[in-house]
Amino acid sequence: MHIAIVGAAGMIGRKLVETLLERPWLGDQPIDRLTIADVRPCSLASSDMDLREVIGDVSDPIVAAQVLAERPDVVFHVAATAMGQADTDFAAGYRINFDTVRSTLEATRLAGQEYRPRYVYASSIGVYGGAFPDIIDDVFLALPESSYGAQKLMSETLLADYSRRGFVDAVALRLPTIAIRPGVPTHGNSGFFSNIIREPLAGKRAELPAALDVVHWLASPQSAIGFLRHAATLPAEALVGARVLVMPGLAVSVEEEIEALRLIGGEAAVALIDRLSPPLYQPCNFPQRFTAERARALGFALLETNFAEIISFHLDEG
Amino acid sequence: MHIAIVGAAGMIGRKLVETLLERPWLGDQPIDRLTIADVRPCSLASSDMDLREVIGDVSDPIVAAQVLAERPDVVFHVAATAMGQADTDFAAGYRINFDTVRSTLEATRLAGQEYRPRYVYASSIGVYGGAFPDIIDDVFLALPESSYGAQKLMSETLLADYSRRGFVDAVALRLPTIAIRPGVPTHGNSGFFSNIIREPLAGKRAELPAALDVVHWLASPQSAIGFLRHAATLPAEALVGARVLVMPGLAVSVEEEIEALRLIGGEAAVALIDRLSPPLYQPCNFPQRFTAERARALGFALLETNFAEIISFHLDEG
Repeated sequence: MHIAIVGAAGMIGRKLVETLLERPWLGDQPIDRLTIADVRPCSLASSDMDLREVIGDVSDPIVAAQVLAERPDVVFHVAATAMGQADTDFAAGYRINFDTVRSTLEATRLAGQEYRPRYVYASSIGVYGGAFPDIIDDVFLALPESSYGAQKLMSETLLADYSRRGFVDAVALRLPTIAIRPGVPTHGNSGFFSNIIREPLAGKRAELPAALDVVHWLASPQSAIGFLRHAATLPAEALVGARVLVMPGLAVSVEEEIEALRLIGGEAAVALIDRLSPPLYQPCNFPQRFTAERARALGFALLETNFAEIISFHLDEG
Repeated sequence: MHIAIVGAAGMIGRKLVETLLERPWLGDQPIDRLTIADVRPCSLASSDMDLREVIGDVSDPIVAAQVLAERPDVVFHVAATAMGQADTDFAAGYRINFDTVRSTLEATRLAGQEYRPRYVYASSIGVYGGAFPDIIDDVFLALPESSYGAQKLMSETLLADYSRRGFVDAVALRLPTIAIRPGVPTHGNSGFFSNIIREPLAGKRAELPAALDVVHWLASPQSAIGFLRHAATLPAEALVGARVLVMPGLAVSVEEEIEALRLIGGEAAVALIDRLSPPLYQPCNFPQRFTAERARALGFALLETNFAEIISFHLDEG
């Protein structure tokens, strides 16, 4: 199998490439070739995989055509700017979060009718806005309240149309908020779910802008990678009428996060959290939990069963 | 007031321009200037309105900037290819039904923060697909089953985001299927609702590809124009959180259409309908009725109370 990854140098992309090199198969199909694309080089450890790197802006139709030129069997689209950045730099948000989807879908269409790759798209529960019910089902209306969410929703609509027309065989995974994000603190509105754990465990202070009773839908990066890999292996029939899937997650409160941190890092770690007073975010600001019924029926499964496990996954990666 | 109309030579656009010339006001504001844009010239009757015509492809950012250059107070976007054409010519569908929205929204954004026009967008109940309940409420999930529907939904998402960011003050009207469309028979999937009336009344044969018990949500072109005009006059506060509105309509069955035709055109007219056997369309293929609750609360009102009135509107225009 030949696999392409758009956004290979990003948080999810890097991890996806690593696991595809470590476990070079999808379902029962061996992977013998990778095409990775990003605006930045990926600086991968050497491997004996047949690997081609495209460095460039995939929103440019010429670059998109280069990525698709060798007709990969599966395209993973995991390129994105975070919610905060998409709101700060409006044009960059549309270019990275929407135009790269459109350009790659167009490249598959222009490749001709006999080419129809599986296209796995990393969407997000960031598409939801407004007044949230306690639990959100698979037909709840998505009304984005951020440019990031609008771009994800438009991308989903586009890939459903390209799929209906037979140009690709796409599936969009609405990923939970990923925790614990590696790297430096991010200031997207959900970055703090990671910051308040990662920073104290590294001996650094972190700001908590949310009330303790805020509950949100989280999944580990490891679960997200598992979802992407699983989506690549689903039979085409399974996706007809189900091309947008809310992924399983854990509904975790800020208080539960802090209790898990106390368990693992002790009082000293918890003392490094600076609680913003009054808090910026209240429970009504976040979707809390999802049924994720369709995804579960298709075999998407979360690796973690509680937030302490999410922390231990993070420490294992260290 | 300065008003711009994108798609001024189309079925709705032409009629909108005519009424704005005949009744040159919106609410209590007089209209003293029109900018009309289309790929084709509009060939209007002469008038003493200050009228500027832009002939060109508005999906081109340069043309879009020309249309917005004089900072119209209200922009009506009524440019579209019909559902059938958007599915036949895939690239043209995206260019006309989506890129013209994006280019005009970008032109308002690039005009700077002190410019924030009312943007009235002609969307469509074509955004809905899938299994329809008997009556569709304002939070029913739109899952397009046509490229046309996908383009309309993406445009709505885009204009909600540009509005949220303060670049425009937009509202999208999900118009019912317009009947009776003037002109020649169209072969979009809902064209027959018009064809089976307009053609027999002109002494010509028309094909009916649907079962008699198919029910669908219709409005006259005159009501559609009324909705567009009303949308331009709504106070900005009314649109916060309500930028996508399903418009009122009449739930009419094919059988009721034929009975109204019989009443007005007699048996001879009805005899000109050729019923396709077996019919291509069944009741499940069309959304039947909508609550249109939010729109009604904002004062959007249908002119007609039954289908015979729709026919008489059509005959009056002849």
